[in-house]
Amino acid sequence: MDLTVDQLAYSLNTVWVLVSAFLVFFMQAGFALVEAGFTRAKNAVNILMKNFSDYLVGSIAFFAVGYAFMFGAGDGFMGKEGFFLEGAIREDIPLLAFFLFQLVFAGTAATILSGAMAERTKYSSYLVISLVMTAIIYPIVGHWVWGGGWLATKGFIDFAGSGVVHTVGGVAGLMGAIMLGARKGAFDPKSNVHRGHNITFAGLGVFILWLGWFGFNPGSQLAAAGEGNAQAIALIAVNTNLAAAAGALMGVFLSWMKDKPSAGMLLNGALAGLVGITAGCAAVTPIIAIVIGALSGVVMYLGTIALRMFRIDDPVGAFPVHGCAGVFGVLAVGLFATEGGLFMGGSAELLGTQIIGILAIIAWTTLTSGVLFLILKVTIGLRVTATEEIHGLDMHEHGECAYDLFPEPSHA
Amino acid sequence: MDLTVDQLAYSLNTVWVLVSAFLVFFMQAGFALVEAGFTRAKNAVNILMKNFSDYLVGSIAFFAVGYAFMFGAGDGFMGKEGFFLEGAIREDIPLLAFFLFQLVFAGTAATILSGAMAERTKYSSYLVISLVMTAIIYPIVGHWVWGGGWLATKGFIDFAGSGVVHTVGGVAGLMGAIMLGARKGAFDPKSNVHRGHNITFAGLGVFILWLGWFGFNPGSQLAAAGEGNAQAIALIAVNTNLAAAAGALMGVFLSWMKDKPSAGMLLNGALAGLVGITAGCAAVTPIIAIVIGALSGVVMYLGTIALRMFRIDDPVGAFPVHGCAGVFGVLAVGLFATEGGLFMGGSAELLGTQIIGILAIIAWTTLTSGVLFLILKVTIGLRVTATEEIHGLDMHEHGECAYDLFPEPSHA
Amino acid sequence: MDLTVDQLAYSLNTVWVLVSAFLVFFMQAGFALVEAGFTRAKNAVNILMKNFSDYLVGSIAFFAVGYAFMFGAGDGFMGKEGFFLEGAIREDIPLLAFFLFQLVFAGTAATILSGAMAERTKYSSYLVISLVMTAIIYPIVGHWVWGGGWLATKGFIDFAGSGVVHTVGGVAGLMGAIMLGARKGAFDPKSNVHRGHNITFAGLGVFILWLGWFGFNPGSQLAAAGEGNAQAIALIAVNTNLAAAAGALMGVFLSWMKDKPSAGMLLNGALAGLVGITAGCAAVTPIIAIVIGALSGVVMYLGTIALRMFRIDDPVGAFPVHGCAGVFGVLAVGLFATEGGLFMGGSAELLGTQIIGILAIIAWTTLTSGVLFLILKVTIGLRVTATEEIHGLDMHEHGECAYDLFPEPSHA
Repeated sequence: MDLTVDQLAYSLNTVWVLVSAFLVFFMQAGFALVEAGFTRAKNAVNILMKNFSDYLVGSIAFFAVGYAFMFGAGDGFMGKEGFFLEGAIREDIPLLAFFLFQLVFAGTAATILSGAMAERTKYSSYLVISLVMTAIIYPIVGHWVWGGGWLATKGFIDFAGSGVVHTVGGVAGLMGAIMLGARKGAFDPKSNVHRGHNITFAGLGVFILWLGWFGFNPGSQLAAAGEGNAQAIALIAVNTNLAAAAGALMGVFLSWMKDKPSAGMLLNGALAGLVGITAGCAAVTPIIAIVIGALSGVVMYLGTIALRMFRIDDPVGAFPVHGCAGVFGVLAVGLFATEGGLFMGGSAELLGTQIIGILAIIAWTTLTSGVLFLILKVTIGLRVTATEEIHGLDMHEHGECAYDLFPEPSHA
Repeated sequence: MDLTVDQLAYSLNTVWVLVSAFLVFFMQAGFALVEAGFTRAKNAVNILMKNFSDYLVGSIAFFAVGYAFMFGAGDGFMGKEGFFLEGAIREDIPLLAFFLFQLVFAGTAATILSGAMAERTKYSSYLVISLVMTAIIYPIVGHWVWGGGWLATKGFIDFAGSGVVHTVGGVAGLMGAIMLGARKGAFDPKSNVHRGHNITFAGLGVFILWLGWFGFNPGSQLAAAGEGNAQAIALIAVNTNLAAAAGALMGVFLSWMKDKPSAGMLLNGALAGLVGITAGCAAVTPIIAIVIGALSGVVMYLGTIALRMFRIDDPVGAFPVHGCAGVFGVLAVGLFATEGGLFMGGSAELLGTQIIGILAIIAWTTLTSGVLFLILKVTIGLRVTATEEIHGLDMHEHGECAYDLFPEPSHA
Repeated sequence: MDLTVDQLAYSLNTVWVLVSAFLVFFMQAGFALVEAGFTRAKNAVNILMKNFSDYLVGSIAFFAVGYAFMFGAGDGFMGKEGFFLEGAIREDIPLLAFFLFQLVFAGTAATILSGAMAERTKYSSYLVISLVMTAIIYPIVGHWVWGGGWLATKGFIDFAGSGVVHTVGGVAGLMGAIMLGARKGAFDPKSNVHRGHNITFAGLGVFILWLGWFGFNPGSQLAAAGEGNAQAIALIAVNTNLAAAAGALMGVFLSWMKDKPSAGMLLNGALAGLVGITAGCAAVTPIIAIVIGALSGVVMYLGTIALRMFRIDDPVGAFPVHGCAGVFGVLAVGLFATEGGLFMGGSAELLGTQIIGILAIIAWTTLTSGVLFLILKVTIGLRVTATEEIHGLDMHEHGECAYDLFPEPSHA
């Protein structure tokens, strides 16, 4: 071999981004398990298929057009070149390594919706939603922040996507939950609607998501070579872990104060901590990461209460976790960033930019997803029939049932 | 430290191959979950134990003799040196890193059989089958293609093993399924035989397999250092992902055309796409990977129908997925390879070589596994008794039951 | 970029340690699944929450004080500086990468207890136990061996923690099991106490633990750059794998000799093999790794019988796996180490040091955990009430139930 140090750095960065992409891919399994676990057994096949399908559709759609809209040459609003990666260029790492990393992010944004819209959305509509999310809605926000668009120009900081990924997914999910309406019995205290069918699945799902976040955040450095990059990815990994721990402990604490330490609040608290640190993970110290994680847990808790108050039915708490903690995460950068954060001796300028950015992201997502859901509602329909909902989507939409658990003698 | 660039390249390649090996190892869990999920609860312990045991036996057997038959100095047919790695040498990466990567491949080939032979094979026989698969049947095919054997000399291309791993596993599984005969009630439409006991497990299993394939295919480059290797592993990872997505979407589409979008077809479609791209993942463009993945889904679908037509009982569709898509994947290289593929402006020469190679692999596997199953059948027996099958293999073969799921008051 | 080879080596080592840390983190999910799977459905939420909570508490506690006690400047007994990592320094890799790797180890030591103390420990007490384990008990042993303490000075070898992590966790777990007393019906043969509720979960858990061990052992090299390090991590990975396989096969064999091949013995055998090779994985040859793994399986098997004889109720066999195989692993270094092992032509000196070290670890852990459990017992209480135990900890401690598995029509 006649390699140079630079070529080797290029290779190490490639390995780092690819391994991170693999971990982020695995988050799809985490989302599937969390959503399936927190909902009813009669809809488990449907939930699984949706969690796969958004990534399936997204893989093709983001390859065909999403990447071009997000990273192609264009204007401040959107990219306009590079469909099917035709002509796309990347110099720091192989284009296809960068593409894969971005693709699994697009898949994450898309899959967040499935939780908020669980147990009542038509499978065919969900396919269209996944297509539009990964082809248009997410990539354009992505362009603003990571593709050299207008928010990047303004100095908006969202390192790994509290806003770009999680707020987009969480807000679109909220819109979906509103447009769908609540599940039957969702606010009837005697109903079984709120009993997840397998909390062990949900717990495993959160472990997998936490693992995947070690790709999501540290991988977003897009480089490991060089002392600065090595220090950065280590800091990001530690911040990610501490924020998750703090968020989960806050979830336990708050639920305990009210009643008993709850698994649901532990798990969603962990996720909220992860979402909340995502924007600022490279810009704060570990102690601040603990603070952001804990506050993200509080925000998630309040968001959960607010949804109930407004009688919006989000079966797994996707909006409190990804929407509320996502918005908080973006704002937290303005408050806590070591350089420029308001509470760290900075001016209000960064915070101002963060507010503008997150408002723009919310407005765009609300508008576009709202129009999408409206069109679906008046065309192929957004919601299954009452009969299908009562019997479960599995039998009606897929002709299958997830479980047959009795290990009893059986046969012909 | 006083390292050279070359030493560092060696180290980076080692890390890449080891991490890939870890991911491929994890595929064992994926196979276990897919097989357990798609079959009945009364056999779950047995399926789990078999999926572990082939890897346990394989770890020792491939170390003791399999590696020597596959990579030892020998002739075009088989290696003949290096038992217990004694005297084995490797220069590009540490011998033991290369060994571990090859071992997890051997484990994959072996574990494929368990799916096709599920719910009726004796555990003791299965141990012998795993031994022979990882010690002899798989390593000798491996020698032909990857160990410098006669197919390597001919220019046969099977980058990561659509033929070497998946066709061998799938064809041996088919032979096993035929020799065993169908499960009781397998073709009785009123039977519960075809209802998997936990589709969520099966779905998680496919997510894990997909993740593992990011080690399986890109890891087969055996190097990451240097711009060419970095570009290659990124291309392979993207091709792997796109083929899986296309295969799964094809599975959804075909099942939907016939009836309803089916989880089974989505999951097996994803696996078929992964199997199908495995031979050519380094030799085709991303758009061609989508084509190969989609066609692999079709091939798997047709294979599933064919099995039913011939009344062969393959409980999880191991042959359609690994055998049919495996064969197709090898042929697809001859059709679509950027360099030499018939449809890409090449001659029929590569395709001819691919046909010869896959026929040889099928013939070898059919013959050797057939003899093996026959010997087992007339000696210790291949199949459990009818009573054991009806009551479930778990209670009879292991004295255990996989589930006791009622969270009700209980105790002393 | 203007990187030097040294900077790149630093970066590669960072990536290696971080990826290993991520894998070790994932072991938390493995422990949760093994413990939940091997116990009853009525306690699954509680088990899940405990397995999360020890890591949550540990993340904060090890950051705040544990790391300082373990690696801070101090004396032979304990570190005394570096609280909240203040002033802590590391030159080989970023401090925070090293910290994260050490944190996930602390989390492992802590989580081992939950298995031995399952199905009857109060959640609040468990939080305190986790705090003390990760802040004091584990870090001080860690200082002795890995922080430059008195056992390090003596030449005690425990490469990745058969003693430091597993014996500490296993012995503390045993103390907990003794102080708690047995579960109701634990020694009543007609009781359902010993039937795990989901063996598939347990199996998946062991696959995940095995995967995580590829980070645990090879990651403990703390470096991959350079030919020596690359060779070392490959050897360690192979030894880890072979020992696990041998341990599991031994578990199958022993249970089969007595009755039938048992999943529980296969799974705990694999874990015992992994625990047993952890101390010596860098110091022995692959063939010796097989020997150590197999003997670890025997030791685990005997430990299981001994517990039953003494009527100590360790629901998942945490002590036989982590305590017994952990002690054996430390001693095995003295017997089998290529350099200095008694059976490998060495003197009895190394073995003597290993004996002194493991006795000190056992004594320290017995004493400190014993005092801790005693204090908890007479203050907030260690054990739930009889009613809570009979009804299940899930409903009483958390107001939740893990499962609602009937996919039947339902709703409002």
